[in-house]
Amino acid sequence: MQRALGLAREVLYTTTPNPRVGCVIVRDGQILGEGATQPPGGGHAEVMALRAARAAGHDLAGATVYVTLEPCSHFGRTPPCVDALVAAAPARVVVALGDPNPRVSGQGFARLRAAGVEVSSGVCEEEALALNPGFVARMSRGTPWLWLKLAASLDGRSALHNGLSQWITGEAARADGHAWRARADLVLTGLGTIVHDDPQLNVRAVSTPRQPRRGVVDGQFRVPEDARLFDGEPVWVFTARQDHAKAERLASRNVEVVCLPDASGEHVDLPGMMRWLGAHECNEVHVEAGAGLSGALLAADCVDELLVYLAPVLLGDAAGMVRLPVLERLDAARRYAFTDLVRVGEDVRLQARDPARWQALLDSARQASFI
Amino acid sequence: MQRALGLAREVLYTTTPNPRVGCVIVRDGQILGEGATQPPGGGHAEVMALRAARAAGHDLAGATVYVTLEPCSHFGRTPPCVDALVAAAPARVVVALGDPNPRVSGQGFARLRAAGVEVSSGVCEEEALALNPGFVARMSRGTPWLWLKLAASLDGRSALHNGLSQWITGEAARADGHAWRARADLVLTGLGTIVHDDPQLNVRAVSTPRQPRRGVVDGQFRVPEDARLFDGEPVWVFTARQDHAKAERLASRNVEVVCLPDASGEHVDLPGMMRWLGAHECNEVHVEAGAGLSGALLAADCVDELLVYLAPVLLGDAAGMVRLPVLERLDAARRYAFTDLVRVGEDVRLQARDPARWQALLDSARQASFI
Repeated sequence: MQRALGLAREVLYTTTPNPRVGCVIVRDGQILGEGATQPPGGGHAEVMALRAARAAGHDLAGATVYVTLEPCSHFGRTPPCVDALVAAAPARVVVALGDPNPRVSGQGFARLRAAGVEVSSGVCEEEALALNPGFVARMSRGTPWLWLKLAASLDGRSALHNGLSQWITGEAARADGHAWRARADLVLTGLGTIVHDDPQLNVRAVSTPRQPRRGVVDGQFRVPEDARLFDGEPVWVFTARQDHAKAERLASRNVEVVCLPDASGEHVDLPGMMRWLGAHECNEVHVEAGAGLSGALLAADCVDELLVYLAPVLLGDAAGMVRLPVLERLDAARRYAFTDLVRVGEDVRLQARDPARWQALLDSARQASFI
Repeated sequence: MQRALGLAREVLYTTTPNPRVGCVIVRDGQILGEGATQPPGGGHAEVMALRAARAAGHDLAGATVYVTLEPCSHFGRTPPCVDALVAAAPARVVVALGDPNPRVSGQGFARLRAAGVEVSSGVCEEEALALNPGFVARMSRGTPWLWLKLAASLDGRSALHNGLSQWITGEAARADGHAWRARADLVLTGLGTIVHDDPQLNVRAVSTPRQPRRGVVDGQFRVPEDARLFDGEPVWVFTARQDHAKAERLASRNVEVVCLPDASGEHVDLPGMMRWLGAHECNEVHVEAGAGLSGALLAADCVDELLVYLAPVLLGDAAGMVRLPVLERLDAARRYAFTDLVRVGEDVRLQARDPARWQALLDSARQASFI
């Protein structure tokens, strides 16, 4: 299964909106075939592995198929993988994670069992979920998995009092941040960052065949039309204010303006934006914004995970990482759970996620196994 | 040598102002004897290991002695270890770290070589230095090694706007912090912390036979005489203002008041305090203070190492970790180097130190070997 997870990791940047899946077919300690999900429209992992086994002249009698996600049982862009597996008739299928896709959920397992294939599930489940939290979130709750990328000094300062912020963390942390952009469906920022830094927000520091879409949250639709972000590749602008003339001018540059006002009419309805993104096949959202939007997403409870880069320096004065409503009690603050800490060049990267939301994803994937 | 380092770690809380040293005597893969430095006045590691070997009936012909610090060559509270080693006549002595003590520096090596013992040095040097940065700092530059213990949220906030600060980090982080107090010679805080939290600042969460001395930096000598800190165990108060009557009242409670005004006469001369501490046999200083004293020590360039506990929570508003003079340029901030990151309960601990100062300690220990 570790080998199957490794194969899935190799396609981290390319399969979306489909999940990243790896598959290894084994008999008597020999690998008969292996594969990973191809870009949308291409073969799924199971089909790639079956093809490889067939090309090498193997039949699958008595073989065990290791696959990181429950095989699909429905016609999407490709025919169901379960049909291909049933036709190949292996002795056993071992699955890491159930598929909460309502069109799959347990059907894959049921079809295999009906065909006399032994099925087991839950092997390396959390590692498999870490490969596809966005896919599982979209299928089970209808919204993407969102992480907030923050970079600051060890005392949590992301800029000096005079606005200087480039660069507190180093080259390696920036490249690592680009790797997280590369796996996302959407790289999202706020108007403040556009005005202050005018970033491109695309992936440059790591190699990827697919660029994520970019997005801007801009309540009053003040985004400058000559922002570097508007480079002809697709961009979404989320706003609370209609301006058809501006929207039309931007449309000619491949910018789609989405008007989603909240109850006040002043700001973007952030939870509504999350549902909209889920409906538009976004699995993973990478937020790289200033303290304003970062804080607003936290306050609106839209943040699933934190990805924090800290530099070994203390700055003392200057701007904080997130702007939040004033807290009166410490237990009023949302507690995340650290999941990983590593050194990245001269900096460190800390990951923490909302434990209840993670558990909810695991539960929804597990339900699949018991239908 | 790893075993000798382990023995030295076992006496981390007890040997000061002497260094923590471990010694293992080996022949043909068999351990003949081992030991670690006893509390002041007791035997040093080499003598303990020699005694153990003798008690087990071994002579040392052809043996190798592994010792984590250059054996002493002078009469202090005990006779020189070098004499004992020369008398035992092992074939070889392997040392991790030279001793920059001007009364030892290279003399230990020279005496052993003159007696026909093969000597080598520099094995696991940095690990050995990490056991005794304070001793090496005091011997080589005349001041203690000082670390700043900071605890905060992931966005660097150590209290809410209303002053609430207990507890951002958890029980495990507090216990770990006590282990760092336990190895220090002095636990130092500022007046603000005394007034705000009235802490005891002693070691409770880990077991230790020795309590570190405590100290308060209190420029205007405003410390309340009924502070819980003044419990009869020794305390130093560093101030810039004379008040003989108050000092005398405190003296009866085992408090020594040290007047060290800076040029303005308003504040304590912090670099002067560091030299005073060095002259008073302080090897390691553990600072656990508010943003004021922490920032002042950083600004006065008295901080060698950072020990930062971060909780997986974002607080947004509220007080920062350190108060520093306003910076105009990012490269004006002192860069530390991360040396360790670990999870401590639900929190993380990040260690970073000043790389130039660490290198200076290594260099001074290395000089010993070349005299």
